Amino acid sequence: MRAYVVHAHPEPRSFTAAMRDTIVAALRERGDEVSVADLYEIGFNPVLSRADFLDPQNPEALAYTAEQRAGYAGRTLAPDILAQAEAVLAADLLVLTFPVYWFSMPAMLKGWIDRVLLSGPMYSGRHMYAKGGLRGRRALVAASLGGRDHMFGEAALHGDLERGMLSHLLRGTLGVVGYDVVAPFWAYHAPYVDQAERERMLARLRRYVLDLERAPLLDMPDLASFDERFRPITGTP
Amino acid sequence: MRAYVVHAHPEPRSFTAAMRDTIVAALRERGDEVSVADLYEIGFNPVLSRADFLDPQNPEALAYTAEQRAGYAGRTLAPDILAQAEAVLAADLLVLTFPVYWFSMPAMLKGWIDRVLLSGPMYSGRHMYAKGGLRGRRALVAASLGGRDHMFGEAALHGDLERGMLSHLLRGTLGVVGYDVVAPFWAYHAPYVDQAERERMLARLRRYVLDLERAPLLDMPDLASFDERFRPITGTP
Repeated sequence: MRAYVVHAHPEPRSFTAAMRDTIVAALRERGDEVSVADLYEIGFNPVLSRADFLDPQNPEALAYTAEQRAGYAGRTLAPDILAQAEAVLAADLLVLTFPVYWFSMPAMLKGWIDRVLLSGPMYSGRHMYAKGGLRGRRALVAASLGGRDHMFGEAALHGDLERGMLSHLLRGTLGVVGYDVVAPFWAYHAPYVDQAERERMLARLRRYVLDLERAPLLDMPDLASFDERFRPITGTP
Repeated sequence: MRAYVVHAHPEPRSFTAAMRDTIVAALRERGDEVSVADLYEIGFNPVLSRADFLDPQNPEALAYTAEQRAGYAGRTLAPDILAQAEAVLAADLLVLTFPVYWFSMPAMLKGWIDRVLLSGPMYSGRHMYAKGGLRGRRALVAASLGGRDHMFGEAALHGDLERGMLSHLLRGTLGVVGYDVVAPFWAYHAPYVDQAERERMLARLRRYVLDLERAPLLDMPDLASFDERFRPITGTP
């Protein structure tokens, strides 16, 4: 299996970086081929703009997703985008490692998603979820949080993390492009726990990755419940 | 009333920019004092890093929220952050205008949130939601989407936008810092509708802003249901 690990944390020696290293080591232990992009280290540009298209179809008015499709087909995307997109397309498993900021990703990783997940090869208005371009592949999110685990869940302060706050990433991004999204690995309260607890979390993460085939998948919308324009099909005609 | 409008769109002549202009004009028509930050225009840096702190407490290991608190107290935050934070603190109403990308904000706006919403004056581990630092003020999100309105809602393809995909912004960000969050204005299918429909949307937006006092507020967690460590209080003792 080929894995692509995308990491975004401002500090090279963070606990989140140790999570990334644990994942990479466990995948290699399984015999997987692993490559890593450390977005801060490579100075990735997270701000999408007209400059993303070397030969724009419509230089007057930027239609971003239309330019993505043309730019991918004609190989005229900015080289940094093209390199990332090819790495994603070549991988059976995408892993994202990051600290949760404001119940989402750091802007650095959000910008990677904005620029690299391309309309055309990865999804389109008619090709989402089970029909997404990356169907048949898996995605794993492994993230650190400041909050404690009792703050998350249906009756908890911040609600259910997977069905609520983080659904824009898990369902609306990874799910939409077609990935089978593995239940995420959350390292709660990571900035505040002691070294022993951090080591227990990393050991748990290692076992989780070694056994990734047995990890549950998140539920995604069943396209059979919707018509060809994605309107809900309700009752019998 | 003082309003601060934060706008993030890569194209200066976008429909989303027309939404911003409509909001600014309607607020001025009400007699409000309005200032605007166009994040692309000012070249805002959305990538948080050590460089955000001119006199870091711990130069060895970045603890971002601790540095925010010290940097705000000591006025040693990077000047671009301090200027934005002061503008937010001076405003009774915060307005965010942006195109929805991947069921969230453009990285440019996410980075504004990451860097400008400061631990300390705006929230803390013990001061969230009704106790957040910006309580008593209001926030309005006005955003354009590619999707059609039938794709959103409890039984719809992408689920409920406010309780689901966008809850990380509406509840997890604006709600956490204490804002009364007005029901958002969504411009569905904006890139694909004709000029007449766009004008109808802008007219509807103008009326919405003129009547903002009557707009419904989103539900937020009731802190009375949680103990001092934010654990749910269940049943009687």
